[in-house]
Amino acid sequence: MKLTILGCYAATPRTITNPTSQVLEIKNQMFLIDCGEGTQVQLRKHKIKFARINHIFISHLHGDHFYGLVGLISTFMLLNRVNDLHVYGPKGIKEIILLQLKASGSFTGYNLYFHELDSKESEVVFEDDKVFVKTIPLKHRVYTNGYLFKEKNTQRKLNIEAVEKYEIETCYYQKIKSGGNITLDNGEIIQNELLTFDPEAEKSYAFCSDTLYNETIIPIINSVDVLYHESTFLESEAHLAEKTMHTTAIQAATIAKKANVKQLVIGHYSTRYGNIELFKEEAQTIFEDVLLADDGKTFEFQ
Amino acid sequence: MKLTILGCYAATPRTITNPTSQVLEIKNQMFLIDCGEGTQVQLRKHKIKFARINHIFISHLHGDHFYGLVGLISTFMLLNRVNDLHVYGPKGIKEIILLQLKASGSFTGYNLYFHELDSKESEVVFEDDKVFVKTIPLKHRVYTNGYLFKEKNTQRKLNIEAVEKYEIETCYYQKIKSGGNITLDNGEIIQNELLTFDPEAEKSYAFCSDTLYNETIIPIINSVDVLYHESTFLESEAHLAEKTMHTTAIQAATIAKKANVKQLVIGHYSTRYGNIELFKEEAQTIFEDVLLADDGKTFEFQ
Repeated sequence: MKLTILGCYAATPRTITNPTSQVLEIKNQMFLIDCGEGTQVQLRKHKIKFARINHIFISHLHGDHFYGLVGLISTFMLLNRVNDLHVYGPKGIKEIILLQLKASGSFTGYNLYFHELDSKESEVVFEDDKVFVKTIPLKHRVYTNGYLFKEKNTQRKLNIEAVEKYEIETCYYQKIKSGGNITLDNGEIIQNELLTFDPEAEKSYAFCSDTLYNETIIPIINSVDVLYHESTFLESEAHLAEKTMHTTAIQAATIAKKANVKQLVIGHYSTRYGNIELFKEEAQTIFEDVLLADDGKTFEFQ
Repeated sequence: MKLTILGCYAATPRTITNPTSQVLEIKNQMFLIDCGEGTQVQLRKHKIKFARINHIFISHLHGDHFYGLVGLISTFMLLNRVNDLHVYGPKGIKEIILLQLKASGSFTGYNLYFHELDSKESEVVFEDDKVFVKTIPLKHRVYTNGYLFKEKNTQRKLNIEAVEKYEIETCYYQKIKSGGNITLDNGEIIQNELLTFDPEAEKSYAFCSDTLYNETIIPIINSVDVLYHESTFLESEAHLAEKTMHTTAIQAATIAKKANVKQLVIGHYSTRYGNIELFKEEAQTIFEDVLLADDGKTFEFQ
């Protein structure tokens, strides 16, 4: 599981910082999460192949989270994209994008699907045989969802020593990984647990931005491997966090601790701060394993 | 008259090139022309004060000319702008911007005026005591206007030697510059032409992008000091210019020559070309005084 931060600063793009966008690579699929202005340039800069992005998840309709989307969709068109593109985001996103494409007299050429969200309950919005994605309803000034990405690991791990001992042919390996027992030529039935180990742990990643401190998300993100949580302000500006419906570093860390997550990545820093290390220092007074997001940073989670 | 090129490449923003946007400074006013994605970052990079931009002219509703507008308008809001902002552009631009502001639950805080255009004839869209701006109807795949910016120089130039010779007090200087005669204490009338020189030439700048080769613009841009004309393709791709309704370097130069302009600036290069010097070489086979636009370049026109 690999996370590339394309941008992780709040409000306005600047010469040195970018608004929110990140790419999650999980089970060999790439998911783009949020798409602030300039995201397509950040994708190019970090050499992420446009064609590998087939699913884009937008948290909410504030500019610093989606003003780059229409440009990216247009660029896909100019690059003669053929793959379907799926966009998940708040109700209203489709009208905004289509109005602009219409005004430019353009057609995408590829299939563009919008999955508009308006539920206040957590729901599965994407699922295939390897991964599912669930919304995490957040509390912000406009309708906002975080997203939980979770691997589905239905395959058991082959015990090579055991299958060789029973001289089982390789053509049966898939059946064994899927949990089946094996009948040997002599009629003896070998139970699956003798031939396999438990599946590897299913990795999970929760993206939560933007939001007020909100304990109702804890059951949804409980025990995730990695939680990205916004941390717009330091404690000295806690009143601004409250007012603008954002979170402080300490609040983000409190959520991480209460949800018993393994690692916390913080970001969405207000551009008023010169030194983002202070966010880590404050968060670590509550929760130890804190990583600082920063534009261009890549995290590999084992 | 000063022109700063924020971006001058066609189609998609890249790490090294930006889509169309430029700032024209004329008579101490700043006009922003087009606003592709990333324009606000380019403005910051080139240290152009946001508060000095009160008028934005959009040529057409293709993304590489206006996808940065909504972000700029939002950033003005976040920076607590107070000045009115005027946006001139094709009919439809207001709905696109307001739909996005509405979705974000935001209000600009400052007055935002849209001047929507749909005329196929050239018309004056802005005028004050120093400058006027006129549309230049262009031929492109969607409704498109270029813009002609022209100084209004109604003031004659004071002949200091002459006014001192007649011992005229400084309080009469404004009257003289406005063309008035002076009656001396002895009753003698001094004609204005003895006290002044002709006004300085009125500077003019024409922005023409995007367009098919189009001679109907020649009377509008006739004899301008500086013509910026798109030049998306080299002659080897003339068929693509025709097909996509763009211009080649030679066609841009032909317009410059026929319109008897003083200088030609070319830009809006297709990103397929590695070396933009070739555009200059081709254009100069037709018209001598050619300048190459490039991102971050500033031209001072005396």
